[in-house]
Amino acid sequence: MTDHKIVRAALIGEPVDRPPFWLMRQAGRFLPEYREVRASVGSFLDLCLSPDLATEVTLQPLRRFDMDAAILFADILIIPYALGQDVRFVEGEGPKLEPIRDLKGIEQLDLGNAAGRWQPIIETVRRLSNQLPEEKTLIGFAGAPWTVATYMVEGGSSKDYSVIKTWAYRNPQEFSALIDILIEKTIAYLLDQARAGADVLQLFDTWAGVLAPSERRRWVIEPAKQIVRAIRAEFPEIPIIGFPRGIGTAMMEYVNATEITGLSLDTSVDQKLAKREFGERVALQGNLDPHILLAGGPNLTATVREIVSALGPDRFVFNLGHGILPTTPISHVEEVVSTLKSWRYA
Amino acid sequence: MTDHKIVRAALIGEPVDRPPFWLMRQAGRFLPEYREVRASVGSFLDLCLSPDLATEVTLQPLRRFDMDAAILFADILIIPYALGQDVRFVEGEGPKLEPIRDLKGIEQLDLGNAAGRWQPIIETVRRLSNQLPEEKTLIGFAGAPWTVATYMVEGGSSKDYSVIKTWAYRNPQEFSALIDILIEKTIAYLLDQARAGADVLQLFDTWAGVLAPSERRRWVIEPAKQIVRAIRAEFPEIPIIGFPRGIGTAMMEYVNATEITGLSLDTSVDQKLAKREFGERVALQGNLDPHILLAGGPNLTATVREIVSALGPDRFVFNLGHGILPTTPISHVEEVVSTLKSWRYA
Repeated sequence: MTDHKIVRAALIGEPVDRPPFWLMRQAGRFLPEYREVRASVGSFLDLCLSPDLATEVTLQPLRRFDMDAAILFADILIIPYALGQDVRFVEGEGPKLEPIRDLKGIEQLDLGNAAGRWQPIIETVRRLSNQLPEEKTLIGFAGAPWTVATYMVEGGSSKDYSVIKTWAYRNPQEFSALIDILIEKTIAYLLDQARAGADVLQLFDTWAGVLAPSERRRWVIEPAKQIVRAIRAEFPEIPIIGFPRGIGTAMMEYVNATEITGLSLDTSVDQKLAKREFGERVALQGNLDPHILLAGGPNLTATVREIVSALGPDRFVFNLGHGILPTTPISHVEEVVSTLKSWRYA
Repeated sequence: MTDHKIVRAALIGEPVDRPPFWLMRQAGRFLPEYREVRASVGSFLDLCLSPDLATEVTLQPLRRFDMDAAILFADILIIPYALGQDVRFVEGEGPKLEPIRDLKGIEQLDLGNAAGRWQPIIETVRRLSNQLPEEKTLIGFAGAPWTVATYMVEGGSSKDYSVIKTWAYRNPQEFSALIDILIEKTIAYLLDQARAGADVLQLFDTWAGVLAPSERRRWVIEPAKQIVRAIRAEFPEIPIIGFPRGIGTAMMEYVNATEITGLSLDTSVDQKLAKREFGERVALQGNLDPHILLAGGPNLTATVREIVSALGPDRFVFNLGHGILPTTPISHVEEVVSTLKSWRYA
């Protein structure tokens, strides 16, 4: 009865005999083999845009830990890059973008060539789809419009999102032109990934939590709803996971409105509460605190067990509640993997 | 029937005929009269520790806007200062502390002289209590142990709370020595404020949202519970407001465990949901997004009306969901105040 791809299987409600798992940012800086590849290319963007290297880097954590899923190695800022915005990744400082803060900036985006510019990413998906063993789930992803827009408007990471919030709150008509472009391009980008062989899609809305309720409805929930609907129109069966980080009590509204397949829980969410409140409506993914993984020790073992006991066995994928930290010891990941692999649901 | 002090009255469930209100950080940088006082003293800490100036600054927003409550002008880092930690406020950069990261650092804290060092703050409370008109509520406050500890351990503001989380998660026994000191001193500090005439106390846990559920139980909820209990032992009638910012779905657990009088809602919380889920258990305060106040216009008016309609009339105090932004136009605050003052509950 069980689908060979157990991450996908759990998301669509098929029975699995142990907790399927992958880890957010499982391909990346905490792995020495990643750092080696990274050192061999000029920029982080070059790495994302090289199908050879991105495929290699995506597969590294599966080789080392036998993860149940591979997540495409790319970045949520591929869409601004594809739209012609100047995007640079400055080592140790995070992304720097030439900010867009008015209608003129929006009009200068190069809509016509976006799909062409993200094709190297799609080629990576295609290769991964061909190379991955049958039982591994291939996860494609994109940043959600609001979160991507925060970088496009603020010009990088932000402390208080003052520029984008002031724009969105003062001139929603104008700001919606940007969000509408991002909705359209996110749909096209995710559809391209699905056509190239992604088994599951995840929408990362890392900064969904900074908005007031009515603004969240407009800039987070409504775009996610449109994206899910458009993807389902072409791929009715593909599971889509939403990660509206930090929205707290609005998770139910998000789930009901978007009709997402899976809800990725951030680190703050109590697992028993989540199972009780959302477990009937949606598959759940999460939500080990990356700092608990980093710290290790008895607290790590106990927390992994608590999470699986509370959220499993049905419609549950073990994951972190946020991306893995670069200083995480390999042995801590090995320990978690070993616990999960040897777990047997009663 | 209505208590003269309508903020206090609303918190304890007495009827009020319009929404009582105050604004987080209502005394401070957005006011020109504050900036004038600030420019006349050397450091921000000097300002906090001068009863003359701190009293003046606390009263400024009441003079200008006729707020229903005065909140003591001080800082959540008064406790680390009082414990002898080196605390400086660097203009434009935020607080800088000589970080405490081990047992030795904890042992060097000067517990014996803390109460003496916060006495200027208590003198300010005393003067405010004497000078405030009868109908105004005087609010005392402290930072909650977890949030204060983030500054003490990280050495200032933090992006990811890596140092403190790693310490707390790896060595909870050791870290709890710091939290226990903060619990004890927060109780003593708030009791001193209550004895000096504070009508209401608020506990600010700005960074409560960064913790995993089990850690939140230990470092946020349990300390708040102990603080509430100890204050109630001496002042059974004093309303205490908790502001566990960003804890989302864990608000009910916080309310039930701490038995707090009022829950201050952060900007992200949907008002109708909050009223439905928490309105029977606790007074609610909040939660206008400071960026909506900053942006102004029709969206501001509409949002204020939505908030009052959803959260009022019983046990509700209008406020922001986070501190007022320094660039907020005075006229926007005037507009909100005028709406609230002219509101009549049916």
